[in-house]
Amino acid sequence: MSINYPTRDQFGMYANKSGPGPALMGADTLLGNDVYNKDGEDLGDIKEFMIDMASGRVAYAVLSFGGVFGMGEKLFAVPWAALKLDTENKRFTLNVNKDALKDAPGFDPDHWPSMADKIWATGVHKFYGTPYQVD
Amino acid sequence: MSINYPTRDQFGMYANKSGPGPALMGADTLLGNDVYNKDGEDLGDIKEFMIDMASGRVAYAVLSFGGVFGMGEKLFAVPWAALKLDTENKRFTLNVNKDALKDAPGFDPDHWPSMADKIWATGVHKFYGTPYQVD
Repeated sequence: MSINYPTRDQFGMYANKSGPGPALMGADTLLGNDVYNKDGEDLGDIKEFMIDMASGRVAYAVLSFGGVFGMGEKLFAVPWAALKLDTENKRFTLNVNKDALKDAPGFDPDHWPSMADKIWATGVHKFYGTPYQVD
Repeated sequence: MSINYPTRDQFGMYANKSGPGPALMGADTLLGNDVYNKDGEDLGDIKEFMIDMASGRVAYAVLSFGGVFGMGEKLFAVPWAALKLDTENKRFTLNVNKDALKDAPGFDPDHWPSMADKIWATGVHKFYGTPYQVD
């Protein structure tokens, strides 16, 4: 069984239709959720959400592209704006094809980048075609 | 030992000074972290972060005020802007005194509110004195 937000809903926040979802979703319930592209290919899954503490924005999701590279090699920071929650399939969609991901800027799990660094951030946003918004 | 973000840093994102923190912090590493007030009183801890999916903002942290009410009774949505990360003590600060929290708007863990509801949100922001920002 794949991991998705209903299976990780330990508090029952999605148990009632009158609850917070899908407008507001629990970060913990979205961890481990699958990420597919628009071609329906499994790209990987969500490992972490990086919060810009000053603005309160989720700046990046940290992904493992296990569907592309195999597990456990590198991690990838993907801008929030590049991801879309697919509430029908209960997973995220990232509109990048598998081949292109081979050039995605990744990092070693033992050496996380300085994500506040503007040069690093500019490169990441350029790759995914998302606006780099400095609050 | 209390739970805090270094103890929950399974990926080692804070292991190097050149990493993302404290400007960007991993949501998963902040779960379970303590929340104190400015008087140094233990109020409770972080149970979840609610992401406004359209804007990517962390709209609320969901807290259990175990230091005020005892464990497991109710949960409380606290606007992100009401919380501050105390990097010295590795915990959050919520500037509300213990007595006032007895009037905080809470909910039963089995019945999470519709957090996109404007009347609910207005009440919560009014209690904590934070601006209710509709993106």
